[in-house]
Amino acid sequence: MPLTLDYSNVMVENIGETHGISESMLQTIIQNGHDVYNTLKEKAVQDILGFYKLPFDQQLVKSIKDYAEVARGRFNNYVHIGIGGSALGPIALQTSLRNSYYNFNEKPKMFYPDNVDPDWIQELTDHIDVSKTLFHIVSKSGGTAETAATALHFMRYLNEALGDDFYKNLLFTTDPVEGLLNRIASEYPIKCFRIPPNVGGRFSVLTAVGLVPAAISGIDIGQLMQGAAEMAEICKTTDLKKNPAFVYAAIHYHYMKKGKNISVMMPYSNKLKDMADWYRQLWAESLGKRLDNDKNIVSTGQTPVKALGATDQHSQVQLYVEGPNDKVLSFLEVEKFNNDHSLKNYFTYIKEFNYFEGKSLGQLLNAEKKATELALTNNERPNLTIKFPQIDEKSIGAFFFLLESATAFTGGLLNINAFNQPGVEEGKIATYALMGRGGYEQKKLAIEKQLKKKKTFEI
Amino acid sequence: MPLTLDYSNVMVENIGETHGISESMLQTIIQNGHDVYNTLKEKAVQDILGFYKLPFDQQLVKSIKDYAEVARGRFNNYVHIGIGGSALGPIALQTSLRNSYYNFNEKPKMFYPDNVDPDWIQELTDHIDVSKTLFHIVSKSGGTAETAATALHFMRYLNEALGDDFYKNLLFTTDPVEGLLNRIASEYPIKCFRIPPNVGGRFSVLTAVGLVPAAISGIDIGQLMQGAAEMAEICKTTDLKKNPAFVYAAIHYHYMKKGKNISVMMPYSNKLKDMADWYRQLWAESLGKRLDNDKNIVSTGQTPVKALGATDQHSQVQLYVEGPNDKVLSFLEVEKFNNDHSLKNYFTYIKEFNYFEGKSLGQLLNAEKKATELALTNNERPNLTIKFPQIDEKSIGAFFFLLESATAFTGGLLNINAFNQPGVEEGKIATYALMGRGGYEQKKLAIEKQLKKKKTFEI
Repeated sequence: MPLTLDYSNVMVENIGETHGISESMLQTIIQNGHDVYNTLKEKAVQDILGFYKLPFDQQLVKSIKDYAEVARGRFNNYVHIGIGGSALGPIALQTSLRNSYYNFNEKPKMFYPDNVDPDWIQELTDHIDVSKTLFHIVSKSGGTAETAATALHFMRYLNEALGDDFYKNLLFTTDPVEGLLNRIASEYPIKCFRIPPNVGGRFSVLTAVGLVPAAISGIDIGQLMQGAAEMAEICKTTDLKKNPAFVYAAIHYHYMKKGKNISVMMPYSNKLKDMADWYRQLWAESLGKRLDNDKNIVSTGQTPVKALGATDQHSQVQLYVEGPNDKVLSFLEVEKFNNDHSLKNYFTYIKEFNYFEGKSLGQLLNAEKKATELALTNNERPNLTIKFPQIDEKSIGAFFFLLESATAFTGGLLNINAFNQPGVEEGKIATYALMGRGGYEQKKLAIEKQLKKKKTFEI
Repeated sequence: MPLTLDYSNVMVENIGETHGISESMLQTIIQNGHDVYNTLKEKAVQDILGFYKLPFDQQLVKSIKDYAEVARGRFNNYVHIGIGGSALGPIALQTSLRNSYYNFNEKPKMFYPDNVDPDWIQELTDHIDVSKTLFHIVSKSGGTAETAATALHFMRYLNEALGDDFYKNLLFTTDPVEGLLNRIASEYPIKCFRIPPNVGGRFSVLTAVGLVPAAISGIDIGQLMQGAAEMAEICKTTDLKKNPAFVYAAIHYHYMKKGKNISVMMPYSNKLKDMADWYRQLWAESLGKRLDNDKNIVSTGQTPVKALGATDQHSQVQLYVEGPNDKVLSFLEVEKFNNDHSLKNYFTYIKEFNYFEGKSLGQLLNAEKKATELALTNNERPNLTIKFPQIDEKSIGAFFFLLESATAFTGGLLNINAFNQPGVEEGKIATYALMGRGGYEQKKLAIEKQLKKKKTFEI
């Protein structure tokens, strides 16, 4: 088993009647769950939901490995230009599976500028030699404002350095046919990888979006896919009580219905910290919806929160233990660390340090997790634990798939569309209008009118 | 004015009656606010709450500058060993005011290992030459488990490298008299800075805790204190409607009473990202409380959430716009960036990129902020903006003080003690017990008994 799910501390037996889930409640959700399961299965079989098949694409793994081999030899730097679903998975792969000081010791250095902060982007620009840099531009449509603007920013420097040869330092991952990047690629011989049209951005980490940078930085993407594939088989379990993705979904669905609208993911591991950011997008954008499938206004959605154990015990746990009982906590626990030495008390006259003697940092970290779990449980706060035997390609791949599958199940139970994002359109259009993009002149006038009407309160 | 507060979009005029605040509601809170103001003022005058006076300590600034000057010459690396309030402010100072690639180009390299993840700590250990490293151990009591364990971890390597001279690479910031670090400092001539006993960890960034690393990495701590001092004067404004700290508090107090229990801080700036983590501790640990001052069970507290604009528009904004109306958003906006160049469309055959011509990344970033603000406001989601004229020592100092003062006001309005953290004791004691610390044998037995009783549900 690449991962296990311990959900003891959401059950009535451990946290009591008021906030706990009973066996019969779980059974009721499971009964309704069979329809959800069948609907999702049908969409997987019919290739409407493409993410289910991704872990099994051995051909893609091979072609990306071949490309990465060449790229590693040619470039000193890799710059990943994408945002949201085009960046969060790649970043999490790098930070979970590579050394924290990778960029000091290895080549190509890896960079993920997933924002248009001009100071931050300029610092990166000054740090690298663009002529030795591969720029991987990731966007389905090519029209994503931040991605296009960042690409144009770097084009200035690439053009200065390489002139007409600029295209040799570009790689695109985009739609198979549509979009602006394909139009550029028809003018120059630029290598393109594809995002399947039936895979949404936040479900795309196991496409070229995540696999290309992973392979370039030396991650074993074959093992990553293997872990995801094993989990995909487990998430097919028809006995839903033994299906970890479904049980994760059922628990969260139950608590959303009870008004617990915060989902905290708290890894006890710095390596898994950015996994929680990847989860934040998956959970928020999939489940934060105004309408259900029958067009009823439901305004549903848990706000995902990233926390870090043990660090956030000194920041958030006071609130989690004593504040409103309005959240579900998912701990991520690592059973075996790669480097974990015994401590020694070098200050023997400080008897208060004696208890560290012969213990390790890893033992302390996991004792802290256990202690926080106990404190929450004793205060009737629902919490569960996803256990990693160790952090490696297989467990990381399995984790991605487990949560993707759980998200799909949760959307099904809520009777919402977990695969669109209608609420971001308004802001996108307003951005185009405010930036003066052609075709948005009417919207611009409307916004200016609204801004004029707005009353200002400022100190 | 080092910062301004725009609270237009919490008012009825802009977001409507259902979710908006009216002038008269604000007036009612302000009336009660005068008592809160006077109580806090008295505690400041009587030196019960020490953080109010910190920005005016010129003597401390001078002595830290002198120390930092010497340390910068002597060491290649600086390792900050502390957790929670002993680390979050220092980290935010480094990332907001120094170059993102500081450690590639400058000396001493700065590291903040604020967790006991053994793999992460070992990677740092392998990355540095400990004999050329200053270890700054920050803990009031010296007994904080994570801080002590991390220090003992590095002691092994320091001892190997320097033998009896190990103490020359140590610096302590701790209580003036009490605690374990002072006992070590009485055995060896180790330089000690002090944390005033009337300043809690989460209010300590403007003591040696934050000032020492800031000065060592070249930040102008005089200007930082100057900005904080200016804001301290502003936060004394007795006309509470013109007091930004009080208005911030009043707005959040109002929404907490209405059940909006999430406070999102969303900087449109990568440089301010870790400021939101600093805020998370301040807000959660201060306001997340079971009991009010009259011992009534209130279980109050907003869950603070860190978001990043524009990045999280592709992750969280779908939820913020369409999901439950259960949050208050605080945008951080930067008016002037240091490096912001015009873009050019290098792909002239892609007309869709023409609108970037002559525009800059900074303009795009701030247009995105405006667009998100509009989308939220149109959907009656309360939001406010703290504006930074630019990111520099003065505005950062002002920001720290503004939020500290706002937190104290909010605690006062809620009639809770914002300056303790009783809810973390249970976990601390359980950790000691699980680690086998002397004196916790009874607790260990009790925990083992509880764990035996616990029912396990695992997949």
